[in-house]
Amino acid sequence: MIAVLRLGHRPFRDKRITTHVALVARTFGADEIYIDTKDESIEKNITSINHRFGGKFKVQTDVKPRSIIKSWKGAIVHLTMYGAPLQTAIDALHEKKHQNLLIIVGADKVPAEYYTYADWNVSIGNQPHSEVAALALFLDRYTNKSWEHKKLHGPIEIIPSQQGKNVIIHEGEDDTDA
Amino acid sequence: MIAVLRLGHRPFRDKRITTHVALVARTFGADEIYIDTKDESIEKNITSINHRFGGKFKVQTDVKPRSIIKSWKGAIVHLTMYGAPLQTAIDALHEKKHQNLLIIVGADKVPAEYYTYADWNVSIGNQPHSEVAALALFLDRYTNKSWEHKKLHGPIEIIPSQQGKNVIIHEGEDDTDA
Repeated sequence: MIAVLRLGHRPFRDKRITTHVALVARTFGADEIYIDTKDESIEKNITSINHRFGGKFKVQTDVKPRSIIKSWKGAIVHLTMYGAPLQTAIDALHEKKHQNLLIIVGADKVPAEYYTYADWNVSIGNQPHSEVAALALFLDRYTNKSWEHKKLHGPIEIIPSQQGKNVIIHEGEDDTDA
Repeated sequence: MIAVLRLGHRPFRDKRITTHVALVARTFGADEIYIDTKDESIEKNITSINHRFGGKFKVQTDVKPRSIIKSWKGAIVHLTMYGAPLQTAIDALHEKKHQNLLIIVGADKVPAEYYTYADWNVSIGNQPHSEVAALALFLDRYTNKSWEHKKLHGPIEIIPSQQGKNVIIHEGEDDTDA
């Protein structure tokens, strides 16, 4: 199981960026996202996407980050521009074959204590860019690109197409990924 | 030369997402971003990041997308969830060894005409997620991860570190990447 923990979410300022973080988590192989601040509109948005596009990705807002970290059984990584190189961390994580991975993704400044909770502070390049991109590249490497072959079997299915839009609506089917 | 063309930017609603798109372009190997709508604060922000962290990444806002496309000498790709699979497009693009690549990244709905301007409409998975993530993964693949070894030689240099923050300030040096 792979979970993402989003720290420092401010509903007004961060809604769109945190929504992108959640959708990236869902698309590239995480099972769940925890968001520290209550935000019903993100919960509704992600649930609606599951209903339309499939899968069982979970979202929980208003969580206590320290409780989640303290009770986490598995490895913890924190994505930060100050961290160890991505490939170094990925190789070490793959070697350990962890059952569970918690990925901490900050919004603004992350309090120093979180750097010590993480087994790995990982940087996706040492330039300022985006937590959305950092999470996507981390999951791409960690899951060995398994998203490329993932099917979520939702009512709406998009068929890859070099020109135009090819969308299939599966009527009367449910949205489970069983 | 790799350039990104950001369509449909609305300064109030999209400022942070478009800033992430620009920073991702800068970090993962593009040379320039064109943004259709005037936005001085994004111009200032990116210029400030160049001054501090190095490199010569360019930003132009208030551009005419159709003029840029019509006069573009090189390949054009458009990132969209409806497009052809990433690896298929990357393999075809690598085979042609284009000198110049223009990457179109939409904000909201992209007018149908742009699908026809693109040599490749490319999807980074067929699930809804984020143009920030899509651009990062596209550039990662297209540049064969060359960002992992790129140095921008700015006054501020972050040294990868598994714990804590290791930042070097290069005083009195200029910020060129010569």
